[in-house]
Amino acid sequence: MSEPCNTYKLDDITTMPQRYRANFINSLSGFKSAALLGTTDGKSHNLAIVSSVVHVGANPPLLGMIMRPHTVQRDSLNNIKQQGVYTLNHVHTQWVDKAHQTSARYQPQESEFEKVGLTPWFSDNFNAPYVAESHIKIGLKVEQHFTLCNQTEMVIGAIKEVHLNKAMMSEDGYADIERAGSACISGLDSYHSTHRIAQFSYAKPDTPLTNK
Amino acid sequence: MSEPCNTYKLDDITTMPQRYRANFINSLSGFKSAALLGTTDGKSHNLAIVSSVVHVGANPPLLGMIMRPHTVQRDSLNNIKQQGVYTLNHVHTQWVDKAHQTSARYQPQESEFEKVGLTPWFSDNFNAPYVAESHIKIGLKVEQHFTLCNQTEMVIGAIKEVHLNKAMMSEDGYADIERAGSACISGLDSYHSTHRIAQFSYAKPDTPLTNK
Repeated sequence: MSEPCNTYKLDDITTMPQRYRANFINSLSGFKSAALLGTTDGKSHNLAIVSSVVHVGANPPLLGMIMRPHTVQRDSLNNIKQQGVYTLNHVHTQWVDKAHQTSARYQPQESEFEKVGLTPWFSDNFNAPYVAESHIKIGLKVEQHFTLCNQTEMVIGAIKEVHLNKAMMSEDGYADIERAGSACISGLDSYHSTHRIAQFSYAKPDTPLTNK
Repeated sequence: MSEPCNTYKLDDITTMPQRYRANFINSLSGFKSAALLGTTDGKSHNLAIVSSVVHVGANPPLLGMIMRPHTVQRDSLNNIKQQGVYTLNHVHTQWVDKAHQTSARYQPQESEFEKVGLTPWFSDNFNAPYVAESHIKIGLKVEQHFTLCNQTEMVIGAIKEVHLNKAMMSEDGYADIERAGSACISGLDSYHSTHRIAQFSYAKPDTPLTNK
């Protein structure tokens, strides 16, 4: 609690070297989900790691993500605009290296699936590639897409289907993503496994929390 | 890889009981950051746990978060609208119980700081309360605020100052949030510590990844 604290003002941040600042600011948002974004242009299947997936709502079921149009994410974003559908697939601790390798700058016609050694899989009625190796696969259709104040783009997708082993689900609907081996990310390039500390009951004023 | 997979179509999700669906969908976004949102109305200091913080950009430094205006987050959102500033403070593994307890429905004039046993702390020139016990404290000013398609609200804040011990920063600017003891969340109520698997070099086509 009384650990010595250093203060970084906006001026200190603005004058940091670009890559240093990117590492620093990307650490501040805390742990992030690790997902592979699957898209297609109809011929070539594209795979990109994303760490900006965020829960938007459960009813209707919506997930958001923030994309950078002038980076290696450009091809995925073009595919999403063209096809209107995409998949999100949890990255698991056993193959974080393959997931990270999708961030290399491959040519648009090259498939990251092939390049990194992951397997495209299609469900019956959904026109975007899933990652066969992922234990939690989500198919989404674009619901809202707009540009934020810094020219990044936010894509909100409506969940159309989910593929997972129902054995990982608790009685209350929680899917145990730790048991499924899902990884998380910090900063730009650090991958982590997790260890459950507690799962708490619904909090009420003046009532001690209980562990589920 | 060939684990048996069950498919949940949109209809299956829509017909789930409300709380079951909330648990299910909240698990799908993957691991989430655990932060305490500090706000004030000028008299009472408010604290709310948020798991929807997302990196928006490093230059200028921006963090986004998604808020639900008709829930226990209402008071925090009103304070943000009124004051224009707020803090985000990493939740650490040693006191996830106190952080979770802030989600109880306290009265607007009650301070969650007092109720859960955390300490408000103010920096010299910033008009929102930090959590003294947090090793990573971020002060933000509202940059953009809008309503999403499901009537949740997205607040994008410009980082104005950061308080942390610079000993936790690597040479390349990465802040080691695992060493700092930051926690992550899955679903609505599960808290996790982390264990680093790898920290990779910048990925390039046809070049093996190296561990930093």
